[in-house]
Amino acid sequence: MNSILLEAEELDDAGRASLRDHRAQHIREVLRVGSGRQLRVGVIDGPMGIGVVESMDTECVVLRCELEDKTPPRPRVDLLLALPRPKVLKRMWAPLASIGVGRILLTNAWKVERNYFDTHVLRSEFYRAALIEGLEQARDTRLPIVSIHKQLKVLLEDELDFLVGDVKRLVADPAASDRVRDVVEVGCEKRALVAIGPEGGWIDDELQLLSRHGFARVGLGPRILRTEAATITTLGLLHDRLWI
Amino acid sequence: MNSILLEAEELDDAGRASLRDHRAQHIREVLRVGSGRQLRVGVIDGPMGIGVVESMDTECVVLRCELEDKTPPRPRVDLLLALPRPKVLKRMWAPLASIGVGRILLTNAWKVERNYFDTHVLRSEFYRAALIEGLEQARDTRLPIVSIHKQLKVLLEDELDFLVGDVKRLVADPAASDRVRDVVEVGCEKRALVAIGPEGGWIDDELQLLSRHGFARVGLGPRILRTEAATITTLGLLHDRLWI
Repeated sequence: MNSILLEAEELDDAGRASLRDHRAQHIREVLRVGSGRQLRVGVIDGPMGIGVVESMDTECVVLRCELEDKTPPRPRVDLLLALPRPKVLKRMWAPLASIGVGRILLTNAWKVERNYFDTHVLRSEFYRAALIEGLEQARDTRLPIVSIHKQLKVLLEDELDFLVGDVKRLVADPAASDRVRDVVEVGCEKRALVAIGPEGGWIDDELQLLSRHGFARVGLGPRILRTEAATITTLGLLHDRLWI
Repeated sequence: MNSILLEAEELDDAGRASLRDHRAQHIREVLRVGSGRQLRVGVIDGPMGIGVVESMDTECVVLRCELEDKTPPRPRVDLLLALPRPKVLKRMWAPLASIGVGRILLTNAWKVERNYFDTHVLRSEFYRAALIEGLEQARDTRLPIVSIHKQLKVLLEDELDFLVGDVKRLVADPAASDRVRDVVEVGCEKRALVAIGPEGGWIDDELQLLSRHGFARVGLGPRILRTEAATITTLGLLHDRLWI
């Protein structure tokens, strides 16, 4: 944890929050700070700031927080991800939030098994905690917006323009000769959305559908990467292009 | 598994290998192929090729392999990594091999705990299997060369020139204003070596020592990433620059 995130409703009018959960434990046992010490804090989907440890005992840590005026901007990269196996998705939430994604659109695809949609890993009470952990690592407050789409076609045809608007759209395709750097210029002012397929890849019909909806195909090199590594690498490349 | 790797000594003079372990099981139960089917195979640190399933039963799968003339080149990126916690390192072996590293130099650093060096995760019989799994994913055969260095200073002063020679040297430093793209031109013909610090970061003396030994400092953006994500992202950026 490089910062401690609070829910807005945990703060009273004087900016005080009383922590009793794993965050209090982290302050006591990992950071091992005493009263008077300053910690980086943030309000989920609100500003970052400084929290001073006002008091602490074995039960409770009280922080008095001075928050900045502005909420950090939402990361400028969004992810459209064919639903991976629950075991893989479970590991991905925190790294995705720490690398920085504005939105995570999880979709069905031909090679996604239907029962993947039944997992508890897709329940917000599960993934929200993992996303917050990633934000605390990265010192961000903007919780990625997660949505689940059971039909790729409906998502692309009816929902996507509304959800993400006018963004650079890319799809990772091992057969593509263009790369991220050929498609997104350094300092590009638009947001970017990248689509990553299922473990067996997109089928041709899906790639064509994505093309018709403005997704430029980009390759990641000759090596075949697992979903996790492919996603992290692609998001890293995109952030590098957008970050001035 | 996108390919099946064999040890050179598993092949007889006619290019036949008899598999009885998890690879045989994978061919039977995951790939579910029968006699006559072709699979991608490779020899560890040797050529890739095609293996035809010559016979199979519940015990054994016999492949007859036609190998290419050439061994694939070693990945052009090397990694100098301050030894992470065993739990983290354990998860990193396979992704590192699949993303592609020529060498993995594991080093001590001020903020590395000494007892990390005692882990079984550092024994070659453990990590070799994980590295092979990553190569099978990526369809490569070149096993990363792993070495363990208990003194960063000795490594940099006495060993590094001999181990990696004349390469682009970079060190990830959150305070750096340059980025990978400022330091490594597209199509750079040299190999590259990137140093990634421990969880608490390099101390100033270490950064200065690295600078004196030719490591250019590069930042990865404003977000603080965990070792795994920082390493994968940096290797991805480097491969993108070197890959023509």
